[in-house]
Amino acid sequence: MVLSPHLKGYRPFDERFTFLFNSYYETLGARQPRPRRGMITRPALDEVYAYRAHIDQAVATLLGSRPTREVAELIELGCHHERRHQQLLLTDILHLLAQNPIRPAYRDPAPVSVETAVLPALSFTDFEGGIGEIGHDRVGLAFDSEGPRHRVLTEPFRLADRLVTNAEWMEFIEDGGYTKHLLWLSEGWAKALAEGWSRPLYWETRDGQHWTTTLRGFQLVNPTAPVVHVSYFEADASPRGPESGCRARAQRLDVDGNFLDLNRLRPKPAYPRKAGVQQMFGDVWQWTRSPFSPYPRFRAVDGAVGVYNGKFMSGQLVLRGSSCVTPPGHLRASDRNFFPAHTRWQFAGLRLA
Amino acid sequence: MVLSPHLKGYRPFDERFTFLFNSYYETLGARQPRPRRGMITRPALDEVYAYRAHIDQAVATLLGSRPTREVAELIELGCHHERRHQQLLLTDILHLLAQNPIRPAYRDPAPVSVETAVLPALSFTDFEGGIGEIGHDRVGLAFDSEGPRHRVLTEPFRLADRLVTNAEWMEFIEDGGYTKHLLWLSEGWAKALAEGWSRPLYWETRDGQHWTTTLRGFQLVNPTAPVVHVSYFEADASPRGPESGCRARAQRLDVDGNFLDLNRLRPKPAYPRKAGVQQMFGDVWQWTRSPFSPYPRFRAVDGAVGVYNGKFMSGQLVLRGSSCVTPPGHLRASDRNFFPAHTRWQFAGLRLA
Amino acid sequence: MVLSPHLKGYRPFDERFTFLFNSYYETLGARQPRPRRGMITRPALDEVYAYRAHIDQAVATLLGSRPTREVAELIELGCHHERRHQQLLLTDILHLLAQNPIRPAYRDPAPVSVETAVLPALSFTDFEGGIGEIGHDRVGLAFDSEGPRHRVLTEPFRLADRLVTNAEWMEFIEDGGYTKHLLWLSEGWAKALAEGWSRPLYWETRDGQHWTTTLRGFQLVNPTAPVVHVSYFEADASPRGPESGCRARAQRLDVDGNFLDLNRLRPKPAYPRKAGVQQMFGDVWQWTRSPFSPYPRFRAVDGAVGVYNGKFMSGQLVLRGSSCVTPPGHLRASDRNFFPAHTRWQFAGLRLA
Amino acid sequence: MVLSPHLKGYRPFDERFTFLFNSYYETLGARQPRPRRGMITRPALDEVYAYRAHIDQAVATLLGSRPTREVAELIELGCHHERRHQQLLLTDILHLLAQNPIRPAYRDPAPVSVETAVLPALSFTDFEGGIGEIGHDRVGLAFDSEGPRHRVLTEPFRLADRLVTNAEWMEFIEDGGYTKHLLWLSEGWAKALAEGWSRPLYWETRDGQHWTTTLRGFQLVNPTAPVVHVSYFEADASPRGPESGCRARAQRLDVDGNFLDLNRLRPKPAYPRKAGVQQMFGDVWQWTRSPFSPYPRFRAVDGAVGVYNGKFMSGQLVLRGSSCVTPPGHLRASDRNFFPAHTRWQFAGLRLA
Repeated sequence: MVLSPHLKGYRPFDERFTFLFNSYYETLGARQPRPRRGMITRPALDEVYAYRAHIDQAVATLLGSRPTREVAELIELGCHHERRHQQLLLTDILHLLAQNPIRPAYRDPAPVSVETAVLPALSFTDFEGGIGEIGHDRVGLAFDSEGPRHRVLTEPFRLADRLVTNAEWMEFIEDGGYTKHLLWLSEGWAKALAEGWSRPLYWETRDGQHWTTTLRGFQLVNPTAPVVHVSYFEADASPRGPESGCRARAQRLDVDGNFLDLNRLRPKPAYPRKAGVQQMFGDVWQWTRSPFSPYPRFRAVDGAVGVYNGKFMSGQLVLRGSSCVTPPGHLRASDRNFFPAHTRWQFAGLRLA
Repeated sequence: MVLSPHLKGYRPFDERFTFLFNSYYETLGARQPRPRRGMITRPALDEVYAYRAHIDQAVATLLGSRPTREVAELIELGCHHERRHQQLLLTDILHLLAQNPIRPAYRDPAPVSVETAVLPALSFTDFEGGIGEIGHDRVGLAFDSEGPRHRVLTEPFRLADRLVTNAEWMEFIEDGGYTKHLLWLSEGWAKALAEGWSRPLYWETRDGQHWTTTLRGFQLVNPTAPVVHVSYFEADASPRGPESGCRARAQRLDVDGNFLDLNRLRPKPAYPRKAGVQQMFGDVWQWTRSPFSPYPRFRAVDGAVGVYNGKFMSGQLVLRGSSCVTPPGHLRASDRNFFPAHTRWQFAGLRLA
Repeated sequence: MVLSPHLKGYRPFDERFTFLFNSYYETLGARQPRPRRGMITRPALDEVYAYRAHIDQAVATLLGSRPTREVAELIELGCHHERRHQQLLLTDILHLLAQNPIRPAYRDPAPVSVETAVLPALSFTDFEGGIGEIGHDRVGLAFDSEGPRHRVLTEPFRLADRLVTNAEWMEFIEDGGYTKHLLWLSEGWAKALAEGWSRPLYWETRDGQHWTTTLRGFQLVNPTAPVVHVSYFEADASPRGPESGCRARAQRLDVDGNFLDLNRLRPKPAYPRKAGVQQMFGDVWQWTRSPFSPYPRFRAVDGAVGVYNGKFMSGQLVLRGSSCVTPPGHLRASDRNFFPAHTRWQFAGLRLA
Repeated sequence: MVLSPHLKGYRPFDERFTFLFNSYYETLGARQPRPRRGMITRPALDEVYAYRAHIDQAVATLLGSRPTREVAELIELGCHHERRHQQLLLTDILHLLAQNPIRPAYRDPAPVSVETAVLPALSFTDFEGGIGEIGHDRVGLAFDSEGPRHRVLTEPFRLADRLVTNAEWMEFIEDGGYTKHLLWLSEGWAKALAEGWSRPLYWETRDGQHWTTTLRGFQLVNPTAPVVHVSYFEADASPRGPESGCRARAQRLDVDGNFLDLNRLRPKPAYPRKAGVQQMFGDVWQWTRSPFSPYPRFRAVDGAVGVYNGKFMSGQLVLRGSSCVTPPGHLRASDRNFFPAHTRWQFAGLRLA
């Protein structure tokens, strides 16, 4: 999409790699069917490095040759796309390592000290609601699915100042949350039964203690850290019952649209805010109930870039924020990550609203 | 849920029927797993009739005994629930008959005369948008999923005055709509490939003419009738290309919320309306892009009735209106029917917005 | 195969029934795919009776018209074929009734008195071995798979005088037979794990007692009756360990070929025979280790009759004898019934050799 | 099985490898479930080499310490077992490479010159039949499944002097062999339809010429070479129609038992033998119709070695001879290879009998 049409005299590293590394772009020609991807013997590691160097050098040449604005934007989009894959690589690596009973670690398997700090009390910030604007306004790069910017109506709501923690999730487990079908969506309950869910993905329980596989190895679950590797179905089932003494049920906010554009809404000034809403970025992706569907007046762009995100706008839910494996430069309030409701391998958790 | 707790001295027709006829109510105890339902030998037909008479008589007795308002409402809810199943029965009957190569008809298989009338031109009515209210206001019965009534913000939009027709669908087929992956959602394209979709469910093509199986037998497709038995995926892929000369693409309205509550919005007076928006009820259910999710402040009721619709609020899309097999008394503007996006056996079609 | 080609002026009851009731005969044209058979709405019961009467009358007419020997044999083959289906009907009926938690009985559900008689001791009859002849010799009707008659070499062997009983099977269960993988074939163990086998099909255990579903309803398992509804995998796993004190392991005879042609072999005269080998016919089909493969010089006949049994000569094992639901006239020493090794719904048990 | 119990002071290279590399030995403890094997990240290549060196050294030490006869035999059995895996490795490598559209070759992809030599005429050698002995007699090492030696009765038969060739297989294809259901076993036809078989595995047809993937790359099919990568179902369907003018149908010999022990039977001296039966070893494994079942009086040995082959004695057919990827030292007339009838990835072909 970039080098062949725009860099004069560019020669592909290997014509056959177009087929090998085409994940789903029907516009780019034939490709290996997804369920049989694992059957392909990959090029050897040094070949892959050589391929990468070949690409990097050609992109540098192209950038040095004063490309048009259109080409420059395409390259920038490519960099953002690669960042998405960087976090998927880490997500997949954890998943693979967790399948392996000899428990290899991605790096430094030193045990994390389990913090004994008192769990911060759950507090909420109130927001006024009203008509606001959300979506990317096309100043700077954004994925197609982040726009167009448009108006939304929000009713007044309260948002938890922090994420749901592992300690709170253990309470949910101890309360029999994974065994009470009335808490669950029908589809989620079927999935939970079929796959035998009884705790977050990667957790194991030994002598009454919860352990989990992380990129740093097999460790005790840290009670004050945000719960992670839970599906939307679990997120939906779990936080119905808030702390005792709290009459009103906390409900999760239908946050797509106003979650990360919060600064555009006004917190009620009367409420003491302490530090206000925390842990928005860099911990875990936060499930929302919003479907990943096109914003009003969304129009797919033509060509291979055009099928970028629009094609996936069915059967998935929006996640907001970012996780601990998201590259730092990749944070953008209007970004909408998306996965099916049963997804557990993602670094995803939840926040009450 | 009705007779055992509320009719004094009521004795079940057969204790074992609770198990046999429990479709999905976990609160009502054990039940046959869905995939193995077909393995159960049913009670004989006369037993089923006797069972029905037993129930009818007991309900009549209960109604004659001045039941509480709560019980009366429960019975009314039961009647509405039965109406839903009546249309599902006809939907299933068509599906079964269509599997049978000897093509039995549900009734009077006389061929419908294919109307030669000119297809009415496609016209649109404009609406102003703004903040309106939708959802059931709890005057008269409604399903739990129809409320609570709440405010929604709608941008100005145009709505087609009639449904998409079979003639228009044939154009979509002839334009290669079922072969152009760029028109389709990724999930829809995978399904279409896997199941070999090339026309609406039940259609067959012979000597260049389209035939279809209906409850009245195997018939020529009527070009001026609304297209029916298409999935959301097909609806989404199809109507992108508007009339020639029309620069702006028609987009389907994200209609859940304002579709059938249209009278609460004001059509722009400047537009000539002729007869205005037609075919809202009684033809085909109309796919919307809206997920079947809870309205703001939706709270599930406790008990078996409580799991009525809330449990299904994931992975499904809202359909609005009603179809030709919906019992007449079952029309309600706030009703939200719901099915997964791949559903084709329903009497569902589409309207441009 | 019979009436259309051979009865002058015969008119089919309904042309479409050829499709509907064609189970697997590719030579007879199109048919409903097996996994979707259950989707076909059947003709009504009175139509089915009328169809049967139509056929019976036509066959009677044909038989009265002095048919050729070839046609007469074809009709006789059809009668034998129908008898096979009669026992399959009863086998299927039991299977269906057993799925139904309200436990309908096929007939007279009076409980069978559980015999308290002492279990007859297990005795064996010795056979000399040598070269014998087996297979049908074409005097009288036989299925194609029963011939040609040919020579077989058998080593001396001992055959149990009675079938393995339910009491013995309970011992196998109590010995942990269903939990000791070393006893099982690899394929059988995988199946047993996947389907959770822990006793014969249809058995349930309540308060330490074994019950089972029979055509006469839900009953206590009779300890002295032959065990039934076990697969070949269970038969193979179970009887390795003989009575204590018996050093030599009893091995199951590779009996296809000499089992029911026993009278052609000579029992060693020195052994006292009492009543000799009992329960050969009319109790349960007896699994053998012999594959269902063609006898030497077997040649398939041309046409639809030709594909009668030869097509199934892979992946199945031979069963000998007959069961309690085999029509009495259907017993024939050379008959070879055949099923895959995992089959449990058949009335099949085992005999030690 | 060898080092831990028998080499004093032996320490495993890595305790966790026992789990990782346990393929199916339930006696050796837990293991990764087969369908999820591909999910395990393997140890790095240098670790694997170090592991191998560790084992080799320890075995050398053990052999140098004058082990008991039992231990020596166990080591020899291990060597034979490894040879089996060596040929499976090559079989799997070809399979993987053939999935890869960029067609990597295992070695030297120089095109094989397609021999233009005239196909040798098909001739047969006659054998007298009678009672012979087969099976391993326990002089020298053999797998458990090769014995006990026992008597078999064979009728006179004729055996083709060479294997079926690619040229003959092309005739079968051109005759519509893959489209004529009457030629096929029912189970085989279902498989062929489901997987779209129309030629041997790995074959592709371009401009009327057949190409195939080999360990040496993508090459024209050599007409005079033995056909390979066909299942038993294809072998069974194919060679029914012999040369024109040959009235009697050639039938495949039920060869297990006498195939490779041919020298124990006497060819009829009257027949001119030229070179006699050729291509017995080192070309392709030859399908037989014999089930892989225990020889008379076969007894499984106790322990992990005991489950060596006996556990697999169901649902598989015997193949005789050896293939081009069998290590030379691994040839033994009594060896019985075994695979399910649908297997195509093996280097397996056929010989007429």
